Order: sequence, then structure tokens, then C-alpha cells
Amino acid sequence: MILHGYYRSTAAWRVRIALNLKGLTAEHRPHHLRRGEQREGSYTRLNPQGLLPALELDGGAVLTQSLAICEYLDETQPDPPLLPREPLERARVRAFAQAIACDIHPVQNLKVLNRLGALGFDQEARNGWAREVIAEGLAACEILAVAGGGDAFCFGVGPGLADLCLVPQLYNARRFGVDLSAVPALLRAEAACAELPAFQAAVPERQPDAE
Amino acid sequence: MILHGYYRSTAAWRVRIALNLKGLTAEHRPHHLRRGEQREGSYTRLNPQGLLPALELDGGAVLTQSLAICEYLDETQPDPPLLPREPLERARVRAFAQAIACDIHPVQNLKVLNRLGALGFDQEARNGWAREVIAEGLAACEILAVAGGGDAFCFGVGPGLADLCLVPQLYNARRFGVDLSAVPALLRAEAACAELPAFQAAVPERQPDAE
Repeated sequence: MILHGYYRSTAAWRVRIALNLKGLTAEHRPHHLRRGEQREGSYTRLNPQGLLPALELDGGAVLTQSLAICEYLDETQPDPPLLPREPLERARVRAFAQAIACDIHPVQNLKVLNRLGALGFDQEARNGWAREVIAEGLAACEILAVAGGGDAFCFGVGPGLADLCLVPQLYNARRFGVDLSAVPALLRAEAACAELPAFQAAVPERQPDAE
Repeated sequence: MILHGYYRSTAAWRVRIALNLKGLTAEHRPHHLRRGEQREGSYTRLNPQGLLPALELDGGAVLTQSLAICEYLDETQPDPPLLPREPLERARVRAFAQAIACDIHPVQNLKVLNRLGALGFDQEARNGWAREVIAEGLAACEILAVAGGGDAFCFGVGPGLADLCLVPQLYNARRFGVDLSAVPALLRAEAACAELPAFQAAVPERQPDAE
């Protein structure tokens, strides 16, 4: 398998964690987001959205969208599970993951910040936008996680889809200077994840294209 | 069940279609998005994100995030299916749904447009932003749908998770004046959906809170 990513793409990072948790290996092929390499024809032929990540399977099929990729990995390699068994619990974990993957990340990612820059916003205004979106989104996630009642991880007794979305998003939160004192349950889950080799190996600094 | 929604919320609309396809009924409880009713405490106690929709189950549990709700409905009421059986096909349908639910809708919804307005953008600039985001996203969805090879619907022989995301997004596209001539496969899927009572009953104009 080939994982098309970028060391600081939080969406690619989610898939790196999922692969590691499942004990799967993939060749990592970086595309430099800031240089726009993900919009080159050689890549958009694989992923017409021109977004990272994409996972090329050994047979040649290409999967896109980080959460869809994670669900695929969970369905084809069920152990250890990324989602609980019960439909209601699965829905709660997915909702948490989507609160990040739909309502925080796409509204604060490089693409949107570049769009704001093209409209005349300076760096500080763009950072303020990102800070606001992340802080508001994480405040809701904190409530969802507390209700989820995980011992240390967001939900349940092991790391899963919620945690692999959370950890990269907290990294982004710090990059933009978000005050995280209001989200202790999220920080506790992050700390539990940081103990695990699957999460340790996935951090941006340990990727081959880290700068 | 109670579906908390708003007639023009495209995320709530997705769940209306899913409920109809499954033959399930829910009381529709509207929250007026433009008046900010979804941010009132009586609702944020149910959904800390303050976003629509939320589905209150008969036992009192509350589900949030439209795609998580649809997956819950699909797991608890499998017939007719919203997703194909094979993991690879499921991943493709989910990726299409997420291309809309993560990368188009949250970047053009009322919340972001209001945020732009607060920063001084006039109506036309906000509409231009939405048009650009939607056009670019749907262009990628067109390629995904063509590759999906559905007969009429986006994927496979029946309507599913992809179609129930697509139809409301095309409605939004028209509201903002997006040129849809470049997405014939999407329009074909939309036309196939428009034949079905489950989609007909879910349109904004037929909701009790339609204005």
C-alpha cells in the first residue's frame, strides 16, 4: 500500500495512526501541501479532490477521505477495533470524529486560510479565524467526550476513531495558539494516546518529509 | 423519535431522506437557523455543537452529525441499505459523502458565511465564496460519481448515502448560482432521486417550518 500524505496534514496523520494501530505498513509518499503538489495532475488522477490523504491499495484501487479510509481499514482488519460494537456507541464515536473532520478541520485548514489570504486577510487575521473555529469546536468535543465516559481515551477502554482525529487536531490547536485549559478530558485522552507506539510513530516530526 | 432540524438545513435534509428511505417516521422539531435558535441552551443541552440535525431516539439518547446518524439508521434498520456490502465499495460511497459533508458544506454553510459577514464581507462576496467552494467540490464529485459507475444513482442500482448528500448540496448550489452544466452525472443522479417519494417528501418546501 502507498499512503499519499504530508507530514503536517492532520487528515493524513489520522490514517497513519489507524494503519499503525492495525499493524499495517504502507509506503509513505509525500506531497508538499504548501507548494501545492497535491494539485498536480499526477496526483489528481488518483484523487480528483486534490486533497490528502489517499491510500493506494496493492491491487491499485485508490481510497480517499481519511474517515472513509479508516472505516475501510476497520472493516477489512477488524482487530483492534477503531469503533465500538453497539450501534449507539458507534454513532457517538463517529459523531465526535465528524465534529472534528467536518466542522473544525475543513474550516481552518490551509486551503481555507489561503482563500482568506487571497481576499486580503493578513496572517494574524487568518490565525484568529483558525483559533476561533478550533476553540469553539473543541469546546463541544470536550462535552461529547465527557458524556462518552472513556476511562482515559475519548470513548471506551482503547484508542479509536475519536482519538485518532483528536490528537492531530490538538496539534493544530497549539500551532494557532488556542487556549486548551478548557478541555481537560481531551488533554487526558491525548496523554493516554501519547503513551502508545502507534501514536508516537505517526507524529509529523517523525515523518520522512518533516522539515 | 424526534428529528431536530430546519427546513433548509442540508444536513437535516440528509437525515430526512434516510428516515424516509428506511420507512421510519420521526416528529420534526424545527429550530430556526437564521434566528440562531440552534444556539439556545434548550438545544445545546442536546447537541453541544449547536448544529442541526440531532436525532432523539425513543429511549432518550441523542445522536448528532448527519452522517453518523445515517450510519446508525443503516446499522439498526439495514433494509434498504444506504451502503453497498463490499468494503471497497462502501469506502467509495463514504468518500463521496464526505467530500460533500466535510469539504463542501461546512465551508459554505450559514455559519461560515456569517463569520465572513462579521469580517466585513458583503452579500455578493459571501455568495462568491460559497459558489467557488461548491463548484470546485462538485467538480470532484462528478469524477467520483463517473468512476463509481452507477446506472442512474451515484453508485450502484439504488439510492444511498452518496445520493442523500448530493441532492441537498445541488439545491444549495442553485441557491448560490453555481453553473451545473459541468456535472451531468450528478444531475442524472439527482433526477433519478427526484422520482422517489422518499426524496420528494424530504424537500425543504414540504417541511412544516418552510417559509
